[in-house]
Amino acid sequence: MEEEQSPRLGRDPATEPSPAPEWPDSDSKNDDSANDPEDPAGGSGSGSGNGISSLEQPLLKRSTTLTASHLAIVGAKVSHIESLDYEIIENDLFKHDWRSRSNVEVLQYIFLKWAMAFLVGLLTGVIASLINLAIENISGLKMLQMVNLVRGKRYWAGFLYFAGVNFALTFVAAVLCVVFAPTAAGPGIPEIKAYLNGVDTPNMFGAPQLIVKIIGSIGAVSSGMDLGKEGPLVHIGACLANLLSQGGEGRWRLRWRWLRYFNNDRDRRDLITCGASSGVCAAFRAPVGGVLFALEEVATWWRSALLWRTFFSTATVVVVLRGFIEVCRDGRCGMFGEGGLILFDVSDVTVRYHVGDLLPVTLVGVLGGVLGALYNHVLHQVLRLYNLINAKGRLAKLALALAVSVFTSAGLYLLPFAVPCTPCDPAFGDACPTVGKSGNFKQFNCPTGYYNDLASLLHATNVDATRNIFSTGTAGEFRLDSLLIFFGIYCVLGLFTFGIAVPSGLFLPIILMGSAYGRILALVLARFVRIDHGLYAVLGAAALMSGSMRMTVSLCVIFLELTNNLLLLPITMFVLLIAKTVGDAFNPSIYEIILDLKGLPFLEPKPETWMKDLAVGELAAAKPRVVTLQVIEKVSTVVEVLRSTPHNGFPVLDWPRPGVSELHGLVLRSHLMAVLKKRWFLTDKRRTEEWEARERFSSTELAEKSGSIDEVAVQLTPEELDMYIDLHPFTNTTPYTVVETMSVAKAVVLFRTCALRHMLIIPKFQGPEIAPIVGILTRQDLRAHNILGAFPHLANKRKVH
Amino acid sequence: MEEEQSPRLGRDPATEPSPAPEWPDSDSKNDDSANDPEDPAGGSGSGSGNGISSLEQPLLKRSTTLTASHLAIVGAKVSHIESLDYEIIENDLFKHDWRSRSNVEVLQYIFLKWAMAFLVGLLTGVIASLINLAIENISGLKMLQMVNLVRGKRYWAGFLYFAGVNFALTFVAAVLCVVFAPTAAGPGIPEIKAYLNGVDTPNMFGAPQLIVKIIGSIGAVSSGMDLGKEGPLVHIGACLANLLSQGGEGRWRLRWRWLRYFNNDRDRRDLITCGASSGVCAAFRAPVGGVLFALEEVATWWRSALLWRTFFSTATVVVVLRGFIEVCRDGRCGMFGEGGLILFDVSDVTVRYHVGDLLPVTLVGVLGGVLGALYNHVLHQVLRLYNLINAKGRLAKLALALAVSVFTSAGLYLLPFAVPCTPCDPAFGDACPTVGKSGNFKQFNCPTGYYNDLASLLHATNVDATRNIFSTGTAGEFRLDSLLIFFGIYCVLGLFTFGIAVPSGLFLPIILMGSAYGRILALVLARFVRIDHGLYAVLGAAALMSGSMRMTVSLCVIFLELTNNLLLLPITMFVLLIAKTVGDAFNPSIYEIILDLKGLPFLEPKPETWMKDLAVGELAAAKPRVVTLQVIEKVSTVVEVLRSTPHNGFPVLDWPRPGVSELHGLVLRSHLMAVLKKRWFLTDKRRTEEWEARERFSSTELAEKSGSIDEVAVQLTPEELDMYIDLHPFTNTTPYTVVETMSVAKAVVLFRTCALRHMLIIPKFQGPEIAPIVGILTRQDLRAHNILGAFPHLANKRKVH
Repeated sequence: MEEEQSPRLGRDPATEPSPAPEWPDSDSKNDDSANDPEDPAGGSGSGSGNGISSLEQPLLKRSTTLTASHLAIVGAKVSHIESLDYEIIENDLFKHDWRSRSNVEVLQYIFLKWAMAFLVGLLTGVIASLINLAIENISGLKMLQMVNLVRGKRYWAGFLYFAGVNFALTFVAAVLCVVFAPTAAGPGIPEIKAYLNGVDTPNMFGAPQLIVKIIGSIGAVSSGMDLGKEGPLVHIGACLANLLSQGGEGRWRLRWRWLRYFNNDRDRRDLITCGASSGVCAAFRAPVGGVLFALEEVATWWRSALLWRTFFSTATVVVVLRGFIEVCRDGRCGMFGEGGLILFDVSDVTVRYHVGDLLPVTLVGVLGGVLGALYNHVLHQVLRLYNLINAKGRLAKLALALAVSVFTSAGLYLLPFAVPCTPCDPAFGDACPTVGKSGNFKQFNCPTGYYNDLASLLHATNVDATRNIFSTGTAGEFRLDSLLIFFGIYCVLGLFTFGIAVPSGLFLPIILMGSAYGRILALVLARFVRIDHGLYAVLGAAALMSGSMRMTVSLCVIFLELTNNLLLLPITMFVLLIAKTVGDAFNPSIYEIILDLKGLPFLEPKPETWMKDLAVGELAAAKPRVVTLQVIEKVSTVVEVLRSTPHNGFPVLDWPRPGVSELHGLVLRSHLMAVLKKRWFLTDKRRTEEWEARERFSSTELAEKSGSIDEVAVQLTPEELDMYIDLHPFTNTTPYTVVETMSVAKAVVLFRTCALRHMLIIPKFQGPEIAPIVGILTRQDLRAHNILGAFPHLANKRKVH
Repeated sequence: MEEEQSPRLGRDPATEPSPAPEWPDSDSKNDDSANDPEDPAGGSGSGSGNGISSLEQPLLKRSTTLTASHLAIVGAKVSHIESLDYEIIENDLFKHDWRSRSNVEVLQYIFLKWAMAFLVGLLTGVIASLINLAIENISGLKMLQMVNLVRGKRYWAGFLYFAGVNFALTFVAAVLCVVFAPTAAGPGIPEIKAYLNGVDTPNMFGAPQLIVKIIGSIGAVSSGMDLGKEGPLVHIGACLANLLSQGGEGRWRLRWRWLRYFNNDRDRRDLITCGASSGVCAAFRAPVGGVLFALEEVATWWRSALLWRTFFSTATVVVVLRGFIEVCRDGRCGMFGEGGLILFDVSDVTVRYHVGDLLPVTLVGVLGGVLGALYNHVLHQVLRLYNLINAKGRLAKLALALAVSVFTSAGLYLLPFAVPCTPCDPAFGDACPTVGKSGNFKQFNCPTGYYNDLASLLHATNVDATRNIFSTGTAGEFRLDSLLIFFGIYCVLGLFTFGIAVPSGLFLPIILMGSAYGRILALVLARFVRIDHGLYAVLGAAALMSGSMRMTVSLCVIFLELTNNLLLLPITMFVLLIAKTVGDAFNPSIYEIILDLKGLPFLEPKPETWMKDLAVGELAAAKPRVVTLQVIEKVSTVVEVLRSTPHNGFPVLDWPRPGVSELHGLVLRSHLMAVLKKRWFLTDKRRTEEWEARERFSSTELAEKSGSIDEVAVQLTPEELDMYIDLHPFTNTTPYTVVETMSVAKAVVLFRTCALRHMLIIPKFQGPEIAPIVGILTRQDLRAHNILGAFPHLANKRKVH
């Protein structure tokens, strides 16, 4: 786990073309020239101290150096994080590799890409179906037994049974999560978002995470806690994609030759996008919604080719889901198999709306936005608190999860006793009351002919509860006080369940809260609302989702595919837009809050306005000196550089003739490590022929992640350390460069749109004694928070928009 | 109409820092050093002739210079085209402008963006509704009268009446198109696609185009020709967006202060994207489909903020459309107003499909792909032929349009006589036969109790015909021979109607053809197909659309919103994917073919593989020398440069001290023109203070398009010509630069992802006597076709993928 390259300023090498340029101590963060009062021009005057008239004056005085943290919260621990390399490394070896690719290999690559997309869809579909099967059977059996005890008036036994089973299920989920895969807790969507933005969270997409997520999800959702399997399914899709692209995990990796095509961050990124879409699709049975979710919320870079491929994955998922439903239709799968492909079908209602509905619909949106923002705010505080608790160790995490489970069980079991029984409307016939099966009118503790409306909502899986509350044509089914109790308990549970150490999704808790809110509003505004109460519940859920998650098109399509009522689309759109606008006025989306809380260095799409006031040269000057290498470098120097710095990329300089210097390119730490491991050293300073390196290094070897430098360095003899390395074949000769006067705002856009990891800063001037490189910028250096740390004056310039 | 910047090589200025660098004659395309045998290193060794060892050898010998055409077919004429400037021009004046923006102004800007998106949606919705109203009433009346004549056995009178009315309607549409706005012919979608890619087609989005498109669409569609109003509606949306952002057209422009926020290509581009989505939404009543169409097919750059805004526009459109439908429900709008928001509702069928359906569904996809590709191929040939005819002049264009109209009328009127009458199925009751209204079973020339199935398809508006052929539960309604005749005539009409000089869309012709193909296939495979024939027709239409247009997700959602049957989604997805894959194996999509035919320099998302083998330095060396300016330049020099070159951007160089040169930035032609117009000259060579320029030039003035240099130059006195211009305030000091060794493939990706207009090439070496600029690249230089002209050897390296 090395750190990101955040290198030091290298002005000297050009002026003194010495073979081994000096570099400062490894851990000195304050030893650079940035604080040097004799260098007021900052990074802009690189190399030539004398004043130059046309040189742009720096707009601000720097106050401290630019320091960047490479730490983030992974699971509950603070870990080092790494950036991903989406740039094409155009070095000699790479160029030779693709030039030598035959047409057959190109076709293999294309075939493999599609086959992988298919496999990701297939496996996600199968796993999602199995998870559903398990959850519905486990919670179905649990509920049946509990209801039987209650019907026999054995209330305490019922409670103990209910709470006990829930406790055991939570225990399984939490122990797995705490012991084997702490990163499997939570939804995993923020980490996927970060991955697709270029941040690799360690131990996130491996086999332990996948297995814990599957079993943990089953346990946690069956235990009746207020969490969904939607987020975990997205994570499962991403894990599957990652494992497939690597051919497995660690020691058990498949060494299939074809897999080398996926041995790069770009193709892996594409596949993980497919996995995330498949997960959403499997969760909501929404193929188009899945693609759009990946597009709108998860992915940072998008292209048409990817649209097509993710679409293929989700189509596969839907076919698998349909197949399972078809197989289970006649009761072969226990309690699973009711309902078709549409999760919450409300298509039986013909929607008619008029100008008069505008007001109540706007109200749903506005209040939804406010509630969503409030939810984000409070959840943020709860997560901070939970982070403190979870950091105390495994037992604390376990205890927290189990406490929430007990609290949930008590709430769900006891609250229905607090409401009176409702007589069945004879119009519903046999459907009311429902005993021993899923249905709208749970009898629970009521006499025959009566039902307990709160039990219908609380004594059901979360999906069934949503289905009940969305049910149309049932305006009088739920009493206002029951709905208020339901809303209240789910608000509390939704806030206090999310941060515990079990796989948990955010979608369903918010949908449950939102649907209750919608129904309540419908009852309160009954005189003004002419829309069916079930549809109003759908609108409420959409509003709260949008108010919290701030998605628009993808949510709209997901809701469309969930409810199968196209005529609802225009009002859903308006509610979503209103709720998002209102929510955005208060705070960022819940995923952004979580990303920020975890400290993941996510690059926002839009640069801050004040970034236009800062030049990249100034930014580079606020950093330690850049560590550069010579194009033919001593082994000992390379070892020392690798050992003393955590950087991942080093600019390579050359002096082809006196007075003329050249930025030859950028060499990656992993490639240097590969050279050291292979001991590809030269006895004298000479430039090697292209074939020499090509014979020794395969592109697969170079694509491997590098290990620790210390292990490698210790094996080198003093003679070897005195030898030379020719970096020509390994140097990416065309790294992305910007001129030092470019504004940070523009650089950020370039960095993000081109998905860079390193951005080299070159001097503005052309002349003798000017070093060919001014500095190097990485993701951390371009984050607003870090820049403001070094340039606090800029904070005052923050503006709207 | 100036040309794109395609400038010349400027190596000299650095070595001889003379105030006025020489530049070659204006029209000499072959006078550069590129063909000079004494300069084998190409652009890579810029300035220093002596060999440098580490210099990368050029991979290929250049054979000719890189020439680029700036011409494209606009309307039917060959015109100059211009690139758009999506880059932020960071010069002093711009920086001052945004720094001085108050919070109120920022809020104004945000408000205006949303208000414009709303207005675009509103107006598109209203215009689309009015067009529908007009078309349905005109063609309804026409059909009624014709049917009355036929029922009175006055067949010849019926034909003359029918053909005559069609002729007159076509005449109106074609005359308007030919005389007032030749660019209004066709769908306009390729030009919108090009605009959003950065190519401005002249006279494309103005008021004449808007008006002609509206009236022309009504005329052309009512005349019964095989064309749709869908493409034109997209163009109408784009025109509305453009006019709104400019505050109107030419002399009648609104000079509202707030509109200055839209005085740049970026914001205009966003609004035109909203317009295009609104158009699709209005055409298909598909709000999500409209957004996705813009995303997948039309737009080149996309971001989340745009997703949200286009979504808002389409939501507005839907509300307007619903409003109109609501108003017209009780017959107040003549023949308009039947049907709801769903255009081709097939939601009454419960779709059930099994493994056995896989084969027929695959067949629909494969054949649809083949037919789509074939259609593209033949249409390409027809369009080439039509281009020759249309180039002959206005009368030829008019005659062609009228000939197609007469041919169409004859086909539509006469063919139903060729098929026998079908007895009505008593199950349909009063619905069969339909007389005097729209319906499935047109009686036409048949006795009571019988209907003419071909007349049901041919004697209806295209939308009604589609509705009839999509109608479900009517497996035996259409005879195979009628369908074959229908398919045949619409294949011929679809190929020969598209290129004529009237506004015409491609969607509906392809849907008609495809639905007929689907029904035919269903009848042929009747023994194997268990899916409803109407649904099979939907699948056929989707397959043909995908086979021709190669869209996936957006088509899928459009079909979903057209037919309102969510259960159809998975098979539609598979059919679309198969058809696209099959089609892609043969030729590019129809829009790409049209773009290519028109010669619009569209930048493809993916660079060609052989581009990795070429360095940008070599590309620059194959071009004429770059024309550079000094940062304080003589007026006469500026005038001469502007007069003798058609370029739009000029690198600005500076020599702050002996031996040190600097690429100060890039200055735009329009800004130079503004300086000349204002006569902001200096008597001596001095650097002005920032406020001096700021006082004289407003950002609004600088954003204006420049006029002709000759008009301005002629007004300058000899004294003025001897004065100086300080370019500091106007120079964009941070243009995007690449190092000369970067591969063209990487440069193309950078150019496209960052939406550039000019890309400067800087030298690899740092040292004395090295010019700070090697060359400049523009859109034309990076197009595969143009590069292959200069480097024909590369063509042999073309590979799959």
